[in-house]
Amino acid sequence: MQVWKDYQEKNKDRFLDELLQLLRIPSISAKTEHKPDMVKCAEAVKQRLLEAGADKVELYPTDGHPIVYGEKIIDPSKPTVLVYGHYDVQPPEPLNLWKNEPFDPTIINGKIFARGSCDDKGQVYMHVKALEILVKTNTLTNNIKFCIEGEEEVGSPNLGKFVSAHKDLLKADCVLISDSAMISLDTPSLDIGLRGLSYIEVEVTGPNRDLHSGVYGGAVANPITILAKMIASLHDENNHISIPGFYDDVLISSDEERALMAKAPFDEKEYREDLGVKELWGEKGYSTNERTGIRPTLELNGIWGGYTGEGAKTVLPSKAFAKISARLVPNQESDKITTLLIDHLQKIAPANVTVKASLHHGGEPYVTPIDSNAYKAASKAIEATFGKSPIPVRGGGSIPICALFEKELGIKIVLMGFGLDSDNLHSPNEKFDLANFYKGIETIPHFHHFFAEM
Amino acid sequence: MQVWKDYQEKNKDRFLDELLQLLRIPSISAKTEHKPDMVKCAEAVKQRLLEAGADKVELYPTDGHPIVYGEKIIDPSKPTVLVYGHYDVQPPEPLNLWKNEPFDPTIINGKIFARGSCDDKGQVYMHVKALEILVKTNTLTNNIKFCIEGEEEVGSPNLGKFVSAHKDLLKADCVLISDSAMISLDTPSLDIGLRGLSYIEVEVTGPNRDLHSGVYGGAVANPITILAKMIASLHDENNHISIPGFYDDVLISSDEERALMAKAPFDEKEYREDLGVKELWGEKGYSTNERTGIRPTLELNGIWGGYTGEGAKTVLPSKAFAKISARLVPNQESDKITTLLIDHLQKIAPANVTVKASLHHGGEPYVTPIDSNAYKAASKAIEATFGKSPIPVRGGGSIPICALFEKELGIKIVLMGFGLDSDNLHSPNEKFDLANFYKGIETIPHFHHFFAEM
Repeated sequence: MQVWKDYQEKNKDRFLDELLQLLRIPSISAKTEHKPDMVKCAEAVKQRLLEAGADKVELYPTDGHPIVYGEKIIDPSKPTVLVYGHYDVQPPEPLNLWKNEPFDPTIINGKIFARGSCDDKGQVYMHVKALEILVKTNTLTNNIKFCIEGEEEVGSPNLGKFVSAHKDLLKADCVLISDSAMISLDTPSLDIGLRGLSYIEVEVTGPNRDLHSGVYGGAVANPITILAKMIASLHDENNHISIPGFYDDVLISSDEERALMAKAPFDEKEYREDLGVKELWGEKGYSTNERTGIRPTLELNGIWGGYTGEGAKTVLPSKAFAKISARLVPNQESDKITTLLIDHLQKIAPANVTVKASLHHGGEPYVTPIDSNAYKAASKAIEATFGKSPIPVRGGGSIPICALFEKELGIKIVLMGFGLDSDNLHSPNEKFDLANFYKGIETIPHFHHFFAEM
Repeated sequence: MQVWKDYQEKNKDRFLDELLQLLRIPSISAKTEHKPDMVKCAEAVKQRLLEAGADKVELYPTDGHPIVYGEKIIDPSKPTVLVYGHYDVQPPEPLNLWKNEPFDPTIINGKIFARGSCDDKGQVYMHVKALEILVKTNTLTNNIKFCIEGEEEVGSPNLGKFVSAHKDLLKADCVLISDSAMISLDTPSLDIGLRGLSYIEVEVTGPNRDLHSGVYGGAVANPITILAKMIASLHDENNHISIPGFYDDVLISSDEERALMAKAPFDEKEYREDLGVKELWGEKGYSTNERTGIRPTLELNGIWGGYTGEGAKTVLPSKAFAKISARLVPNQESDKITTLLIDHLQKIAPANVTVKASLHHGGEPYVTPIDSNAYKAASKAIEATFGKSPIPVRGGGSIPICALFEKELGIKIVLMGFGLDSDNLHSPNEKFDLANFYKGIETIPHFHHFFAEM
């Protein structure tokens, strides 16, 4: 609608300025030292929702960081959309690889560089501004609820309890989430699936103290060497995960499905060059899109042990550590895989070390149907603003709460993300293209109108 | 001699107090931020040598940290002993495992806990106090020179140049070094060999930036996983090092030598219990003492990559790093092994990563004869104060400058160490037993007298 476009055009500089203010708050949920920033950020989201026209906004305290709940109810008999997002961000480290300060958003070539610019403050803020447009132009035809949490990046440990306890409050006809990517502005897409997650930490202990590597080297098992051997054994020569039982519950995609997936545009050379690698890597027998979409994976997210500072220290360390996460696909279960991983690591550890392994967080894989009203409304909205209908794709990331919402609220989720895979989520130099930000704000009101009409 | 004992008895509290002052200076050679502390420590060593009765003491600047040279010449025609030691220390990390502050020496149960207490400030200081005793009791019968450097813990990069340029200054009849351990005060021993060292750092780069492990996981080689596989391949199932050519130059010890070594007291159960490990580890076919004495080894001294902070971050990192060192035995050559290691790592790296590897520092293995005058004098000195003659043993550590001194100055080295293997060198809670400190001060004057008589 022209009235939406006009409103956005007139206010776009302010929209951007408000987002930049939000990005300046270092709302890192993983680090306890940022607890005050988390509260500050939640308060800011609340304030912006009120200014945008929400009737009621509340912070709900949890055992971790607060959840922001807001609503604009025009008529309880009309359809209701629940918008989910998160105001917390990943830690920005390694800081030396950022071109600007991660919490000092900088616009370069039409892109906002900042931690959280795309994941997920920038995408959450599209929804806040879409609400403003609908309210201020008097064109709202449905009810909108917001559930913006502060613990997505640490596995949403308290959201389940909140959702169970507030089913009436959250009652809606669909959940709309913008926390993922599309292929490009030229090739819009909608995620129809996300992988689940089992994220564990492993501690390998050799001797009871750090030792001189000359005096004891060669006589005592080095926990780094042992950990390396354990990690090395987790993938076989075809890059299959070699943990017995790991693939047992994997839903095998049909040849038909795989053929459909293969139609999504993919340029391997461009992909390789963007990443700066000479060769790709992955499970034998599957394409790159399949490896990140329909197959489970096991990645090392961190490793440390011994002396890691400047120069040389001849130490045989007492301990070595790793952070390991598996991405899961339907019908794998996070708890089952976590137990399998931990048991396997304990089992393969030789007798000269002790291994402790524990869960960081997990989440279930999720696949959404493409015949739901929510999916259809999203598809139409994208067609209205992009001029072409979106390609359905299976995303590699995880939003563990999808399965939770569906189970607790009994409604379907639609994943309408406006980021790009190249937005450096979780990496240095995270960015969000202004074009995508504004396109998102333009598209979301259409979604609400289409959904209200269905 | 009773006069030495009496002098020490009367001054022992001051001796200790002076050592504690020296231990309070954080002379960490590996860290550039401690450059001022290095100068402060060198100045303190100089001052103490002068107070002990040295005629002349000078700091010689180098491209790194200064070398302290001192001398007490009573008669150029008499035998001269060159005492070598170092005033620099290893980094104290990990700090949280120390029971006291590493640079706040604390005496518990007759042991001085502090970084450098044994390695090597405490042992250097025995020589300073032995000089004082000989000078103040008018019993010096030979010349003593001191060469106390500040870069032993970083591989003595500037000592070679100094020795070459100052052969006349350093001219002596033997080199006496206390920078190693004995079996115990009940079972004194003398090191007759030290291992060489090749210490390298490896950087494995996968993608050109940190990636989201969900979006890219399974499709791009993870540098941690690849590094782990590379490390895992460096030892075979018998814990032999599986780098082609690694053992080529190793001097095989005769059965006779091995039988002699096997006579040194060794209690495996006690050794295991002290280290808190259920099983030992090492190269098949060799005893523990052989594994640390006559066989080369390859140890991981550090590893890091990805997210290593609190909580969880779902990153597929761009880089992973390791610090790796080999201990070498006669006739391996450090340069040759370093090249072999680096080439091997480059060779086994798969095409989906790039590997950079570079030398930190190296040093040649050293074996000293037991029929030299210096060895005989050390053996007699120990017999005089311990009541039994020392067992000759091959130590696992490295003092790379031994080979250098022998080559440049054409004289033999004697390794008369008064530490213990359990002194936590290079580890948290480094200690030096007061009994060993005082026994060292008692023994050293005997060494000078016996050597002067030969």
